[in-house]
Formats: sequence, C-alpha cells, structure tokens
Amino acid sequence: MADTLPKTAISPTRAEDFPEWYQQVVRAADLAESSDVRGCMVIKPWGYGIWENIQRQLDAMFKATGHKNAYFPLLIPVSYFEKEASHVEGFAKECAVVTHYRLELGEDGKMHPDPSAELTEPLVIRPTSETIIGASFARWIQSYRDLPLLINQWANVFRWEMRTRLFLRTAEFLWQEGHTAHETAEEAIEEATEMLQVYSTFVRNHLAVPVYQGEKTASERFPGAVQTLTIEALLQDRKALQAGTSHFLGQNFAKAAGIKFLSRSGTQEFVWTSSWGLSTRAIGAVIMTHGDDDGIIVPPRVAPSHVVILPITPKEETRAAVLEAADKVRAQLVEQRYADESVRVEVDQRDLGGGVKNWDWIKKGIPVRIEIGPRDIASGTIAVSRRDQGIKEKNFMSVNELVSQITNILSQIQQNLLKRATKLRDTYTVKVDSKTEFYDFFTPKNQDKPEIHGGFALAHWSGSSEVEAKIKDELKVTIRCIPFDPEVSDDRPGKCVISGAPSPRRVLFAKAY
Amino acid sequence: MADTLPKTAISPTRAEDFPEWYQQVVRAADLAESSDVRGCMVIKPWGYGIWENIQRQLDAMFKATGHKNAYFPLLIPVSYFEKEASHVEGFAKECAVVTHYRLELGEDGKMHPDPSAELTEPLVIRPTSETIIGASFARWIQSYRDLPLLINQWANVFRWEMRTRLFLRTAEFLWQEGHTAHETAEEAIEEATEMLQVYSTFVRNHLAVPVYQGEKTASERFPGAVQTLTIEALLQDRKALQAGTSHFLGQNFAKAAGIKFLSRSGTQEFVWTSSWGLSTRAIGAVIMTHGDDDGIIVPPRVAPSHVVILPITPKEETRAAVLEAADKVRAQLVEQRYADESVRVEVDQRDLGGGVKNWDWIKKGIPVRIEIGPRDIASGTIAVSRRDQGIKEKNFMSVNELVSQITNILSQIQQNLLKRATKLRDTYTVKVDSKTEFYDFFTPKNQDKPEIHGGFALAHWSGSSEVEAKIKDELKVTIRCIPFDPEVSDDRPGKCVISGAPSPRRVLFAKAY
Repeated sequence: MADTLPKTAISPTRAEDFPEWYQQVVRAADLAESSDVRGCMVIKPWGYGIWENIQRQLDAMFKATGHKNAYFPLLIPVSYFEKEASHVEGFAKECAVVTHYRLELGEDGKMHPDPSAELTEPLVIRPTSETIIGASFARWIQSYRDLPLLINQWANVFRWEMRTRLFLRTAEFLWQEGHTAHETAEEAIEEATEMLQVYSTFVRNHLAVPVYQGEKTASERFPGAVQTLTIEALLQDRKALQAGTSHFLGQNFAKAAGIKFLSRSGTQEFVWTSSWGLSTRAIGAVIMTHGDDDGIIVPPRVAPSHVVILPITPKEETRAAVLEAADKVRAQLVEQRYADESVRVEVDQRDLGGGVKNWDWIKKGIPVRIEIGPRDIASGTIAVSRRDQGIKEKNFMSVNELVSQITNILSQIQQNLLKRATKLRDTYTVKVDSKTEFYDFFTPKNQDKPEIHGGFALAHWSGSSEVEAKIKDELKVTIRCIPFDPEVSDDRPGKCVISGAPSPRRVLFAKAY
Repeated sequence: MADTLPKTAISPTRAEDFPEWYQQVVRAADLAESSDVRGCMVIKPWGYGIWENIQRQLDAMFKATGHKNAYFPLLIPVSYFEKEASHVEGFAKECAVVTHYRLELGEDGKMHPDPSAELTEPLVIRPTSETIIGASFARWIQSYRDLPLLINQWANVFRWEMRTRLFLRTAEFLWQEGHTAHETAEEAIEEATEMLQVYSTFVRNHLAVPVYQGEKTASERFPGAVQTLTIEALLQDRKALQAGTSHFLGQNFAKAAGIKFLSRSGTQEFVWTSSWGLSTRAIGAVIMTHGDDDGIIVPPRVAPSHVVILPITPKEETRAAVLEAADKVRAQLVEQRYADESVRVEVDQRDLGGGVKNWDWIKKGIPVRIEIGPRDIASGTIAVSRRDQGIKEKNFMSVNELVSQITNILSQIQQNLLKRATKLRDTYTVKVDSKTEFYDFFTPKNQDKPEIHGGFALAHWSGSSEVEAKIKDELKVTIRCIPFDPEVSDDRPGKCVISGAPSPRRVLFAKAY
C-alpha cells in the first residue's frame, strides 16, 4: 500500500514552495481553516488542543510569578484610544469599528444597520487592551500598597490585516496580554524583562523553539512603548518570527488613563506600566520550525495527544482481541506521567483502512504511533514509531518496555526537536561584515525558490534610523532585535555594515513574518 | 474593634433592598465592576478566579462526554444570520454591528470611522454562534462517519442589552457554547438531554445550587430551536434564574447552513443539531443563592482560594515567628486534596489591620479563615472560622487536626450550602390551585419590600399561549419550564389555574431574571 502513496504526504515539499507547503500542512493536520469572514480563522480541535496546552502551561508560569487573571471589555470607546497619541496612530488604520447596535429589515428584504440605532461614540474591537485596562487600573490603584498590580487576560483581539496567513497573521487572534503597574521605572523594566524570560523559557522548553532575546529599535517598538523586548525565532525558510513581546510603557499609558498613586513619601505620582503578549501565532512558529514534508511535528509538551494506538483488525475474528489489547495498553500508558501531566493517549477505532489512519496521524504530527495487530498480540511485541524519526522506522518492544519507556521516549522527542531547531538556527545565524556580503546574504540565489531567505545576519549598525529604513526598503530586511546576550551581539565595537559609522555592537537582521 | 463596625458588612441587607444588596456584595467582594462601555463589565481577579474554576471543571465534564474544543470567528456576516428566519428575528434587535475597518482623524481633531473603509457587508459580533459554526460544520461533515460531531467553544458573546446587571445580564458575557451534529433526531435530542443533565450535576455539585430541569414552552424557546431545555434555580429574593440551557435545533440550522451528510443508506440528508450554553451568569446565581448580609459565600469547589491564613502580628518581635508558623501551616494544607484538586491557600501578609483583613475575606466569601497569632503559637491551637457559620464563631484546633480535617471541613461547607439552598427552594416551591391564590402568591404584600417575589408556583396550565401571555403581562410571571421530574410536575391531569381548561400536568411558574 505504501508504494501507491506519494513520496511525501505534503505536496509541495518545503523546498518546492515553502508558503504553499505551510498552507497544506495546516490543512492536512486539521489545525485550522479560513472562514468567510475576511482574515478570521476557524481553529479546529487539533489546533485548538495545542493552544489549550499552551494556555494551561503558560498560565501556570504566570501564576507562579504572582499574576492573576481578569477580564476586560471587548469594545473600547474611541475617546480612550485617542488619549495616547502614538498608540492610536499605530492602531487606527486596522480597527474594526462598531457603529450601530441594532439591525433592521430593509426594503430590499435584507438586514441593515438601523440608522436610529447609531452610537453617539463609535467603539473599536480591542486590538490590544492597554487603554481599557488602564481605565480600570486608575480605579483600582490608590496608594503604593496597591502596587505592584500584576494582571493577565486571556482574550481574542482584532486587527484588520490586509494580508493574512493562518496562525501567523490573522485579523482575529487569541492571545494573553499581561498588564502590570509599578511604583518605579526600574520595577516595571524588571517585570518586562522577567516576562520576556518566561516567554523565552516557555517557547524553548515547551515548543522546542530556540529564540534570541533582545530589544527592538525605536522604529519597531509597540505603539506607545518606551522599550519593546522581543524573542525571535528562525523558521525553516530562514525568515524570523517574533514569537512574543514585552513592553516597558514608562508613564505613557498611566498619564493617558490617569493612573496615579499615593507614594511612600506622600506625593501623588503616575505609575509605571508594562505589558506583554503571546498569541496563537506561536502555533505557526511550531509548524514552521518542526514541520517536515510529511506534515507538522507537534512537540510532546503541547501535543493534544502524545500517543495514538492504531488497532490493526484485518479479520473479524481477531478484532475483539485486538481492541481489547489496545485498550489495555492505553490504560497502562495513561497512568504514566510526562512533564507533570498524565500521558495523553487516543485509540483510533475509526472505520478506515490502516494506511489511511497511519498517514492521518503522521500528518497531524502526533509524537508516538503504536500499531497493534493479531500477530503483535501473539508475539508479545508492538511496533512503536516516533514522529521525529523516519516514517517507516519502527521500534519493536514489549508492552512493559513501552510503558516503562514512554516518558523517556517523549522526553527524547522533545529534546531532539529542540536540538534540530537549534542546529538550524545556529547554522543560519551568520556574522556579516561587509555591505556586499549583507546584500548577498539576503538575495535569493535561485529564483525558483524565492522563499528561502538567508537567515539571521549579525552585523554592526550605528543606530541610524536612515540606514534601518534603507535596508527595509531595499531588502525587506529589518532589525529583529539588539540582542541581550553578549555572546550573540559580540559586545565589541565595530563599524556599521552599511554606512561604516561607528557601532557599539552587532544587531540581529532578518526578513520576518 | 468589632463594636465600631456595622452589624452587617453589607448595607443594605437582603431584607432591606435585595437588588442594591446584590450590587454592594459584588463590589465588596471585588468580583466585578461596570466599565464605561455600556453594559460591559470588568471581571476582577476574585470573580474571574471563580470563572476559571467553573471553566476547568465544566470543561473536564465536556471532555469526559466526548466533546472537543475549537474556536470560531467573533464576527458573523449579516447574510449568515438571515438564513434562519426566527434566529435573526430573535437577535437582530440587540446586535453590535461592525461597519468600518479603519478610523481617520476628522476636522474636529477626533477619530472617526473612515468613510472610505466602509464594509460592503456589515458584520455582527456573535450573540451566539449557531450560524458561523454551521458554516464550518457544512465543510467538515461529508458522511455518517463524521457523525456525531461534538464541539464546544469557550468564548465571549455580545447582546446589546438595555437593562444590565453585573453577571446576571451584561452586553458582553463569557460562556461556553456546545454545538453538535447527529445522524438522527433521536440522537440530537439525547445529546441535548445529556448536556442538560451535565449542567444540572455541575450546578448542583459544584455551585451548590439545586435546580429544576424541564422544557421551555414555545414562547420561551431559543430563536430557531425546536425544543429548549433549561435548569432553573430559585434565588433568595424568590425570583428564578435560568442557569443553563440546551437546545434541540432539529434541522433548522442544518438547512440554513447546508449541513448535509451521506447517510448509511446512501442518500444525502441534513444533519440534526443541538446547542447548549452556560455563562458567567452562573456567578450571579452563586451570589444570590448563597450570599448573606456579610457578603458572598463561595462554594469550596469553585472558590479561587479555599483558605486564607491571617497572621496576627501585634508586636514586631513576634512577627517573624508568626509569619513562619503561617507559612508552615500553608505548606501542610496545600499538600491536602479536596475534590481531586490541591487545597488552595493564601497567606494575607498585607500591611493592614487584622480586623480590616478579616472583614475583607468575609466579604469575599472565602470558605475558611485561619488566624495565627503569638498566643496561638504558644498554645499550639489556632482559630478556624467557617464562612457558612456565624461570623464570630471560631473553632479552636491544633494544626495537625486542621490539616487532617481540612478536606472534611470543605466538604461540609459545600454540603451545608447545598442543604440550605435546597431548603429555601423547597420552602418556596408551592402547589397553587386557584387563580386567587396564584395572583396572591406573586403580589408583594409589603410595598416596602417589592423585591421579594413569591417563589416557584407549581400550577396547572392547559398549554394556551394566551394564558401564558396574560400572566406575563399582568404579573411579569413566566412559565420557567415544564418539569421533567414527575414528582415535581405531579404528573396528573388537572385544570388550568387561570382558565380552568384541562391540563396534563403542573408547570413551574415564577418571576425571573
């Protein structure tokens, strides 16, 4: 049967057409689909299962660092928005605007906004919640005793994007947004830095995606922020993805919303705030980091199921025995623990051919597949396949071995994915020291594969925003961050790779999603 | 100190002014607040903590019954909405309508919807998602092998309500909405019935709120449903609250969205669907069922924290020892399990007076309060107060006793709350057999207390919608449900309490939120 299948489950392959490969992986794994609502996606159960794991695990990390969840209104009055000038400038062009609160039947027999139900002040669907949460903070905070205030919200947000791509850039997306208020600038910066570290740890240890941490340049900052910190991943097409950001907002939003407190010295002061967010975009990073030409590979930590058991029931007379054996294995496996959670196991009893089912789960990227047939029951061994190994590779072991080894196997897969991704990232992180080399690095050699994009270039930059704009304009390359790690930034002075002006250290350039 | 406090922590009391008491309880417990956005509430951490517990526990029940979570777009094209006639009629009058996707700076210096960015088709913020989920189901379902399809969504929804009340009726609220598709009408009805049973079990066992289960009359059905099933609770002002509903939708939405499947006999058929929802309104039910004149009482199952430890540190020299003792008790308590979860404990180290802190937690309704002071350390006993007992009541016990008893104590509180609520509900569920008695039951005797509303009247009704409308008009009383339980409905024929026409059984009347 395998011979009649294409060589790879996903067509085109990554090398043939990376963007189209991505769409096909999302479809083949049943992760998400486009809807008829422009730019809005439907997240299907397997994709949402990944998000639920991200949510639960990240939420535990937020709570362990003292944050509490709350919920704020979906709709924001335009007047709130206007209070912070650069914020409104940043978001006004992509807002969904609510103008009416009722529909009425028109003469054409269709429903239309009722003109008599027009709002006196339009409302926008939150693209982010600094302004509406600021209004609550202004009520909640009276004195230094109320600080720090450490709040997180899990929510949907909306930004009217013109060019969308499932998970990576959608008009509506799901995220968490942390919002905190502090007595001093130092404390707010410390918070922003700590939460970037939480993101970095989470993305590395749970999503198996290695990232560089650093600060954005002024032109790439969040609208209204004083500092934007970021984690940047490298995907297999060698484009960068901003996987999470954390902002020190100074007193900008405190002044806009009037968030004052009685200080320890008895004066009225504005608080210092931070905000930070990570979204369903992270699932796009997982796909583009770990996926192969047979589909997604889901890191075990966030896989909706760790193991699928595929009962092979060629003959009716052995069917009951096989299903019983499958269920026994399942019962033993779910008693095991991996990364502080029970091992998650499915038995695929669908009325479909064994080959179809096997390929379904390969495309879904489940970490471990187990086949159990009549012969396996007789021999006492079962075939265990790991999604990070070749599709046809099978490890034969006894049920007892499997049960005692499952935690190890899952750990190994998780580590292997991180190792591979780190190797790719390191291979395509290159120190570049001349303008020619820089342009060359970011110019595709083979016009058949325009989707391969160089990687991360670590190059000197003097701080000139003109140079930054020129590179963006000519190459679509941006400064992803000024890295924190001195080993990455080199931490030694040099000369700007483009202008030759003195530069304090290297920064990280790449094309980006 | 206690002498200078008012007799009750909440003013007015329930008897003085129940609606105002409710607002004050919500405020005093820091559960939620109104926002500047009409009808939209901010759910504060203590209130959201209750919702998180409801979510986690209910979600586990959905998964145990075979449902998977997914996520669908927030915005629904008006054309989707129009496809099911009674559905659009039911919701068109309270829709938030998005008409533009950009703001621009006007001549008045303010931001306005950009006329050049008007949508060709307006979008409504989902008031419920049957139509948008139906569009996905039509893509997902091909044959009977894809059925049943059992999906749930956790989401925010929006209904432009004119008269709002925190938790009970807000424009935006949080809920879950289950949506399922089946091969036959019987299976869809069975699903709707099973999920009502799940709600009933959850509300009773987790929220300690007893409910009557039954079917709505035609006039009270969900717009577009064939049958609406409901659970109805009785609150302390003797008004009813619909705490969850489950709908058999027939093929109405399947036809509207074109959800067809290849049947086992090879024909193309429309699926049969169900939907069911429970919302943040449930928190309102908890407050109004269990609250007393000192604030909310949170049932242990859903309490964000089970226990607060209040260190009493009158003198600086004993402070360290008291805090250390408090932390030791905390460490021992969190090792204990209650209802399959770790016991949740807070130590209140805020720099505030002991009386203020104690009253704060009383008003927040935390199940157990523990005081530890220098004398308690010396004597080896600590004072344990239960929120379901008198405010001044203290149970003295050793730390070991407390640790070994905490699970029992929490169970007892949970059971006691249910017992009280059941007693109240039963006391005010009355069989009414004459029109005079009926009108009398629902007419307040004392004009100073218009907020007390009779209760549940079990009375005969012939099925006449005229009678139903008349009662609603004259008394603001509705048929809450036709009870399933023959012990409740009496299950014997009689005569309509209003018209005298023959009636198959009693139905449940009440004023309702």
